[in-house]
Amino acid sequence: MQTIALLTDFGIEDIYIGVMKGIMRKIAPDSEIIDITHGVRPQSVREGALSLLNSYKYFPENTIFVAVIDPGVGSERKPIAVRAGDYYFIAPDNGLLSYVLAGFDQFQVVDISNPKYQLSDVSSTFHGRDIFAPAAAHLAAGVDLSELGERVEKLFQLPQPKLDIVEKEVRGEIIHIDHFGNLMTSIGHLRWIEEEKLTLEPRFSVWHEPVPIPALAAQVLVHGQTLYAIRHAFHESRRGDLMVQVDSNGYLEIAVNLGNAAERLDAMVGDEVVLKIGELEED
Amino acid sequence: MQTIALLTDFGIEDIYIGVMKGIMRKIAPDSEIIDITHGVRPQSVREGALSLLNSYKYFPENTIFVAVIDPGVGSERKPIAVRAGDYYFIAPDNGLLSYVLAGFDQFQVVDISNPKYQLSDVSSTFHGRDIFAPAAAHLAAGVDLSELGERVEKLFQLPQPKLDIVEKEVRGEIIHIDHFGNLMTSIGHLRWIEEEKLTLEPRFSVWHEPVPIPALAAQVLVHGQTLYAIRHAFHESRRGDLMVQVDSNGYLEIAVNLGNAAERLDAMVGDEVVLKIGELEED
Amino acid sequence: MQTIALLTDFGIEDIYIGVMKGIMRKIAPDSEIIDITHGVRPQSVREGALSLLNSYKYFPENTIFVAVIDPGVGSERKPIAVRAGDYYFIAPDNGLLSYVLAGFDQFQVVDISNPKYQLSDVSSTFHGRDIFAPAAAHLAAGVDLSELGERVEKLFQLPQPKLDIVEKEVRGEIIHIDHFGNLMTSIGHLRWIEEEKLTLEPRFSVWHEPVPIPALAAQVLVHGQTLYAIRHAFHESRRGDLMVQVDSNGYLEIAVNLGNAAERLDAMVGDEVVLKIGELEED
Repeated sequence: MQTIALLTDFGIEDIYIGVMKGIMRKIAPDSEIIDITHGVRPQSVREGALSLLNSYKYFPENTIFVAVIDPGVGSERKPIAVRAGDYYFIAPDNGLLSYVLAGFDQFQVVDISNPKYQLSDVSSTFHGRDIFAPAAAHLAAGVDLSELGERVEKLFQLPQPKLDIVEKEVRGEIIHIDHFGNLMTSIGHLRWIEEEKLTLEPRFSVWHEPVPIPALAAQVLVHGQTLYAIRHAFHESRRGDLMVQVDSNGYLEIAVNLGNAAERLDAMVGDEVVLKIGELEED
Repeated sequence: MQTIALLTDFGIEDIYIGVMKGIMRKIAPDSEIIDITHGVRPQSVREGALSLLNSYKYFPENTIFVAVIDPGVGSERKPIAVRAGDYYFIAPDNGLLSYVLAGFDQFQVVDISNPKYQLSDVSSTFHGRDIFAPAAAHLAAGVDLSELGERVEKLFQLPQPKLDIVEKEVRGEIIHIDHFGNLMTSIGHLRWIEEEKLTLEPRFSVWHEPVPIPALAAQVLVHGQTLYAIRHAFHESRRGDLMVQVDSNGYLEIAVNLGNAAERLDAMVGDEVVLKIGELEED
Repeated sequence: MQTIALLTDFGIEDIYIGVMKGIMRKIAPDSEIIDITHGVRPQSVREGALSLLNSYKYFPENTIFVAVIDPGVGSERKPIAVRAGDYYFIAPDNGLLSYVLAGFDQFQVVDISNPKYQLSDVSSTFHGRDIFAPAAAHLAAGVDLSELGERVEKLFQLPQPKLDIVEKEVRGEIIHIDHFGNLMTSIGHLRWIEEEKLTLEPRFSVWHEPVPIPALAAQVLVHGQTLYAIRHAFHESRRGDLMVQVDSNGYLEIAVNLGNAAERLDAMVGDEVVLKIGELEED
């Protein structure tokens, strides 16, 4: 059974997702449909692109990802289908796939233009139902990628999230606020090298080599408030403490132990976050 | 594998839907359960009826729809099971199925009264768990409709959404507000006949014949604000524009490009919407 | 096909649940994943424990329940896997399973410590992805419980919800507020013995024997407001009436017919509820 995984900003209050699933069950009855999330902030292509980047690699080989976040629905951007590594991706060509595809040396792209694999009466407003869902289901049912449409050479690229590095200061931004009010930032490529000594290894290209930094000597600034020290896990702090962590994908994250950091700091997606590194231990 | 599709106002914060699925998996392990939505406004039978109408035909043959929106749970209205065309429908007899069933010349209805196909200890407050889920699962597992209970002759009918037509003015109402804040109206039966010239064909019975209208000569009034022209897709407007469209089901829809029309117009379900047609092109 | 059932406080706006499902599909492609709910109030272990208690018994034999509500993620509490009766339960050892396990005379518990059944790079912040989901999927794929880790002898116990009984007065608390604003209380062990006469049988241990009480002679106090009579179903009241019911799990519930009781009474989880019994019919 082939897996189809859905990621949209459609929410689940309406019938949109249910209708897409009905169509897919009709065309590919043996496929298994999984929701990644439908709670991406409305029309936020970048948050969708990051969510897809942080989730796709946990899925089985041959999974068909259907990602739809589309402020310009009905506009000139093409619906596309991509084969990259072991996966298929179906999305509008508005940058939604650009963070994922940056990780592949090569991939094959077609537009979804063959009317044979679309619903007959294509609405100008609901491409999820009329174009994206049928295309995914036909792939799951065995149709070859090249059957869906013509080869596409150049894709729309999304700008990278802000990440400026000057000397011992890294300037990034809040890129996502989760259900618990935790703030995900664009300051990534971080991993613990020595958990006991709380030493981090940032992989920022300007520093050429990975540079170990003592987590306790770092400061994080958000909305003018300074947070000290990067902790390893929640249990190292007390209830209500504002704290900085490295999240499960290697990004700097700001959280409140048993609380809501977004509310505490009145923070929004796009707000600046600065990481000041006290002392770099040069090799 | 038979598909069971669920549509309720139960929300997903509680265990209600999970428990219904557990029961169905137990009785019919090979069935596949799809959520249409559980986000219908609490106790809004009419919105549920419209949601079911706009979604059922996208599902595979033999799909069993379970629709539960029930302000009067435990009251005298009967739980019913219906065979109509290629589909089964299970719901309370409170009008929830009336818009769907209006599209079928004939159908077979029974009440769900046979205790053999209910949970043994039928609660007076959770019929979704005790009556509707087991009935659907038993149908999926091969039980014949006539086994579920006695034939029912007359069903409760929901009034139609407001749609008054006087000369060149069509008066309807907002029937649903979606996740994006788009306003769905009761002014339906519309389709584009010439997209290039933006000409619409309304099929209102008082006009006997479908009458082409130039979309650009139409006005839409909501909350005393006049919106001009019916556009074909979002990309024809600028960011923040209030605009009128024909939605993917043929209804007039009011939206804001990259924004929220419900907030902008302070609109609620039930508010009046008027379509004024500047000039009818008589054949 | 084995059923895996999920109950968390993760919400569905983020990718957390989708990623867990991807991992489980990869390890156990033939399993069927059902969401009980992901809408437990953030970090409310007790509400999660009650939700699991009220739902597990409706699922098929051999269902693997994965319950994750974990204010102290990364702390010293162990991830555990339990075999109890016909079911498996996977959760942090923070009391989340204690209400369910109180119903079993014996059960087998191991910690989930075998790195062979975890994701290779175990994050300190996302155990749902790195520990709980893989463990559930390996069980579904046929791994024996004893393979997951070492036997655990003593589990953390959650205190019981408040339920004090003095003479003819029962003092409890609000333990959950549902999607409709209905208030579930800790005053349980109630069932109708004569629906026609509205006579309840409470099974509070201090009264030794079940004691029939006439529902109409009872009073319920919440926030200083007195509600009279326990009704059998919504249709016995008028639109907007505040009413007391016995819910589908045997707990006292406060609801508003076609309205929201939590808003009406400005009630929160933890608020006291008192049941005063007018006259006990002694046997």
